[in-house]
Amino acid sequence: MTPNITAAKTALSHLDVEENPHAIRTASRDFFWYSPVLKARMDHLLADFVVRPRNEAEVIEILKVCYEHDVPVTTRGAGTGNYGQAMPMRGGCVMHLVYMNQVTSCEPGRVVVQPGCLLKDLDAHCIAHCGHELRMFSSTWATATVGGFVAGGSGGVGSVTWGQLRDLGNIIRLRVVTMEAEPRVLEFRGEELARVSHAYGTNGIITELELPLAPAYDWVHCFVATKDFAAAMDCAEGLANEDGVLLKIASVYEAPVAKSYFQRVSPHVAEDDALVGLMVAPQSMDALVTFLTRRPELSLIYRSDDTDWPRNPGLVFEYGWNHTTLRALKFDPSITYLQVRYAYPDHNALIEKMRATFPGEVLQHLEAIRVNGKVSFAGLSLVKFTTEERLDEIIRIHEDAGAQIFNPHRYTLEEGGRQHSDQRQLSFKKEADPKGLLNPGKMISFDTPDWDYAKIYDYPSMTPKEA
Amino acid sequence: MTPNITAAKTALSHLDVEENPHAIRTASRDFFWYSPVLKARMDHLLADFVVRPRNEAEVIEILKVCYEHDVPVTTRGAGTGNYGQAMPMRGGCVMHLVYMNQVTSCEPGRVVVQPGCLLKDLDAHCIAHCGHELRMFSSTWATATVGGFVAGGSGGVGSVTWGQLRDLGNIIRLRVVTMEAEPRVLEFRGEELARVSHAYGTNGIITELELPLAPAYDWVHCFVATKDFAAAMDCAEGLANEDGVLLKIASVYEAPVAKSYFQRVSPHVAEDDALVGLMVAPQSMDALVTFLTRRPELSLIYRSDDTDWPRNPGLVFEYGWNHTTLRALKFDPSITYLQVRYAYPDHNALIEKMRATFPGEVLQHLEAIRVNGKVSFAGLSLVKFTTEERLDEIIRIHEDAGAQIFNPHRYTLEEGGRQHSDQRQLSFKKEADPKGLLNPGKMISFDTPDWDYAKIYDYPSMTPKEA
Ligand SMILES: Cc1cc2nc3c(=O)[nH]c(=O)nc-3n(C[C@H](O)[C@H](O)[C@H](O)COP(=O)(O)OP(=O)(O)OC[C@H]3O[C@@H](n4cnc5c(N)ncnc54)[C@H](O)[C@@H]3O)c2cc1C
Ligand SMILES: Cc1cc2nc3c(=O)[nH]c(=O)nc-3n(C[C@H](O)[C@H](O)[C@H](O)COP(=O)(O)OP(=O)(O)OC[C@H]3O[C@@H](n4cnc5c(N)ncnc54)[C@H](O)[C@@H]3O)c2cc1C
Repeated sequence: MTPNITAAKTALSHLDVEENPHAIRTASRDFFWYSPVLKARMDHLLADFVVRPRNEAEVIEILKVCYEHDVPVTTRGAGTGNYGQAMPMRGGCVMHLVYMNQVTSCEPGRVVVQPGCLLKDLDAHCIAHCGHELRMFSSTWATATVGGFVAGGSGGVGSVTWGQLRDLGNIIRLRVVTMEAEPRVLEFRGEELARVSHAYGTNGIITELELPLAPAYDWVHCFVATKDFAAAMDCAEGLANEDGVLLKIASVYEAPVAKSYFQRVSPHVAEDDALVGLMVAPQSMDALVTFLTRRPELSLIYRSDDTDWPRNPGLVFEYGWNHTTLRALKFDPSITYLQVRYAYPDHNALIEKMRATFPGEVLQHLEAIRVNGKVSFAGLSLVKFTTEERLDEIIRIHEDAGAQIFNPHRYTLEEGGRQHSDQRQLSFKKEADPKGLLNPGKMISFDTPDWDYAKIYDYPSMTPKEA
Repeated sequence: MTPNITAAKTALSHLDVEENPHAIRTASRDFFWYSPVLKARMDHLLADFVVRPRNEAEVIEILKVCYEHDVPVTTRGAGTGNYGQAMPMRGGCVMHLVYMNQVTSCEPGRVVVQPGCLLKDLDAHCIAHCGHELRMFSSTWATATVGGFVAGGSGGVGSVTWGQLRDLGNIIRLRVVTMEAEPRVLEFRGEELARVSHAYGTNGIITELELPLAPAYDWVHCFVATKDFAAAMDCAEGLANEDGVLLKIASVYEAPVAKSYFQRVSPHVAEDDALVGLMVAPQSMDALVTFLTRRPELSLIYRSDDTDWPRNPGLVFEYGWNHTTLRALKFDPSITYLQVRYAYPDHNALIEKMRATFPGEVLQHLEAIRVNGKVSFAGLSLVKFTTEERLDEIIRIHEDAGAQIFNPHRYTLEEGGRQHSDQRQLSFKKEADPKGLLNPGKMISFDTPDWDYAKIYDYPSMTPKEA
C-alpha cells in the first residue's frame, strides 16, 4: 500500500494546499519536544503536504481522495499537543483545521462549534453572546483548538469542579467523518462519544462539537503562599471540597518552583515558599478570605481584583497544568515532567511519600481535580532529566507505590493512557478507517494487537530517521 | 419585666398593626403541627398583636418601642417553619415581614433582596433579570420567604450540588438590626454570618440579604423507578457523583411511598417500586440516559420534557425534602418524620441497617446532599407515630447506630441541632438582645445555661396552656 502523494495532491489542488517546505515542517510538529524521549524519536517527521479545508464538505473530499490514493491523514488543530499526537508518523497529508473555526450557535448551558475554533475565541464568543463559558479547557486556552482539546486532551482548568472530558455530561455531541471509500458523517452522543474523544483523530475527524457551558464569572486570580507543603495541599483540597465556593483551578507548587520558575511571582515569595494558584468566582471571595483566616499558616499574597504588584502576573492558569513545565523549561532545559494520578482517599500520603523519595530530582506540582465526585490530585511533577533509564525507573517507583502514571513520553494512545487497548476506539477504527490511514502509529492495538508493553513502542512503519 | 402591650401598640399605631383575632391567630402559627409532640405543646400560643413593617426604618422603630415596653418580638416570614420557630412562646408582638419583599439588585452570580420576598418570586425575578436563580431553596419555595429560609432553614433543593446554607460561600452578606434601647444596624460577612443564620430570629432581625446565584436552567423533572432500594440509592448517589451532570435534587423513596402517597405518580408504579426523584439540567439529559442505560435495573418512568402521563405530576422537588411528609400526612394522619444524617463513607450500610430495624414503622426517604465535598444522604424518614416514648426510642436507636438526628420534634435551636449551644449565636444574643425579647424560648443556652438535654426542654416562661 504505497501512498500516491502526487495523485492526491493533484486531486486536491483546487483546495488550500500548502507546499512551502518551511510551512510544511511547522505544520508537522507539535510540543513533542517537551519530552526528551519523544524528541529523540520524532524530530525528523514531516508531512508531504498540508491542506486546509474550509468546511465539512472539503474534509470529506480530502478523506475520500486520500483514501483512494492510500495517503495517511494526520489532523491538526493548533499542534499544542505534547505527545507528538499531531505529528505525521509516516508522512502523507496533514489536514489543518484552522479555517473551520465558527461558533454555530450558543445559549446558556450549551454551544455548537466547529473544531478549529480556538478555546479562547470560543470563550469570548460565548461570554459575549450568552454569559456562559467553557466548563473546562487546557491551559493552552490561548492557542489550542476545541477540536484538538477533545481529540487530544483530557481536562485541565475547570476539572477541579467538572471532572474530566471523559466524564458523563462534559461532551454532548460530536459530529464525525470517517475515512472510507465513501466517507460517512456520523453523530455521536452518550456512550458513543467515547469512540472518538481522546482518540487522537485515529478513527474519525470531528467536524462539529456540542459542549455544555458553565456560567461565566469574572474570575479572581489568586496566589497563596505557605512555608508548609502539606498546608498548601490542604488549602487546594479543602477549598475544592467547599461546596459553596466556586473554583476554576487549584494548583499546588512545591518550593522552590515559585521562586525559581515563576518570574513575576518570584519577587513576592521566598525560596522555601510553597504556592497555591487559584481562580475564584468574585461572589466566593469573601468565603475564600474566611477560609484562609481559619488557617494562619496560609497567606493570600495576590488577588487580581486588589493588588499592588508592580508587574501583572497574568492568568493563574497559565502557571498551572502543563504550563508549569513550560515555565520551568525556560529556566532549566534539563527539566521534563510526569503525569501522575494520586487516587482518593490515600492521595496525600502517597504524594508525601513520592516527595520524600526523589529529593532534588522530582518537584511536586499538583492540580486538584474531581474524580467520581471526590477531590484528589493529578500530579504534573517536574523531573530533572538525566537518562531515559532513570526516567523509566522513576515511573516504576511511582507505579510500585500505587500512583498511576499517564506516561507523557510516549506517542501512542495506550502508553499515554492505561496501557491497554480501548475496545470502543479500536472497533470503531476498524470500521471507520479500514486502511489504517488516520494518524497512523498512534493506536498500538490496531497495528500490533499482541504488544506486551514491556518496553517503549516503536511504530514499525514510522518514517525512518534517515529519510 | 412585665410587657406593656397597650403602650407598645399605642406607640406603633401609625404602622400597619393587625388586631383581628382570627388574623392574629393565623400569624401566630406555623407548621409545628407536623409534629405530634409540638402540637401537644404549642397549639395554644398566641401573639397579642401583629405588625407589618414596610421598611427597615419601621423594623427599627418596632424593635425600639417593644424594647422600651418589654414586649417580646417574634419575626415571621411566611410561617412555613415546622418546629414552631415562628410561634410567639410568650405572646407579645409578631412582626410580619410580608411587605419587605423587594429585590434590590441582581446580576449573574449575586442578588440583594429584602427578607420578605418569597423564594419563588425571587427566582422569577433573577431568572428574568440575569438568567440566574437561587443555588438552593427549601421545598416550600412557592410559599416561604428568603429571610425565613436563611433564619430558619438549612438547605434543601440544590444541596446535592451546593451543600448547605451554613457552608462557606452560600450566603454573602446579611444586614441585621439588633433589639436594644437604640437598635443598631450591622452588616455581617464571612465568619460573622454564623451568628444570625439559622438562629430563628433570636438575636437580630435580617433586613437585607446578599446571596450567590447559580445559572438558571430549564430543569427537567424526572422520576426513576426500580424494584431494588439499593439500586435507587446508588442511582441518586451515583448521579450526584457524576461531576459533569448538573442536578438540583436527587431524592430516594422506599416502596411503597410512591404508590401510597404520590397521587399522580401512583398509577405509574407498583407497590414494590422504590422511586428516585431528579431535577436534571437539559444539557445533562443525554448523560442521564447514558447513566441509566448502564443500569438496566432502573427505569426512567417520567421526564417532564417528554411525557405522555395524562396528569402532570408537577415539580419533583415538591415531592422531596419535607414535602414528602406533607404528602404522606394527607393519606395517613398518624405519620410523622425524623431528620437523620448518614455520614460519608458508611452512609449506605447505616441506612440499610435502619431500614431493617423498623419494618412497617419507619419508611426511608433520603435526599442526596454534599457535605464537605462528599455526597451522602440526609434522611427525612417517615415514621408511623404511636407514642412520644416510642418516637424517642426510635431516635435513640438511630443515634446508637451512629446516625445523627436533628430532632424535628423540638422547638429549640439546640435540640433541633447538635444538642449543644452555639457560642457565636449565644454571645451575639447577649449583645444584641440584652432583655431576651427576640423570639424567646428558642435558645436554651440563653435561658437555662446548665440544661443537660436529658429530656425535652420546656421553656419555663412559655404562656401556660390555660391562658
Ligand atoms: C504548555 C501546554 C499546556 C497544556 N495543558 C493542557 C491541559 O491543561 N489539559 C490538556 O488536556 N492538555 C494540555 N496540553 C496538551 C494540548 O495543548 C491540549 O490538549 C490542546 O487542547 C490540544 O489542542 P490543539 O488544537 O493544539 O490540538 P492538536 O495538538 O493539534 O491535536 C491534538 C490531537 O487531536 C487530533 N485532532 C485535532 N483536531 C481534531 C479533529 N477535529 N478531529 C479529530 N482529531 C483531531 C490531532 O490529530 C492530535 O492527535 C498542554 C500542552 C502544552 C504544550
Ligand atoms: C412542607 C415543608 C417543607 C419544607 N422543606 C424545607 C426544606 O427543604 N429545607 C429547609 O431548610 N426547610 C424546609 N422547611 C422548613 C421551612 O419551610 C423553611 O425553612 C422556610 O424557608 C422558612 O421560611 P418562612 O418564610 O416560612 O419562615 P418562617 O417560618 O416565617 O420563619 C422561620 C424562622 O426564621 C425567623 N425569621 C423569619 N424571618 C426572619 C428575619 N428576617 N430575620 C430574622 N429571623 C427571621 C422566624 O422567627 C422563625 O424562627 C419545610 C417546611 C415545610 C412545612
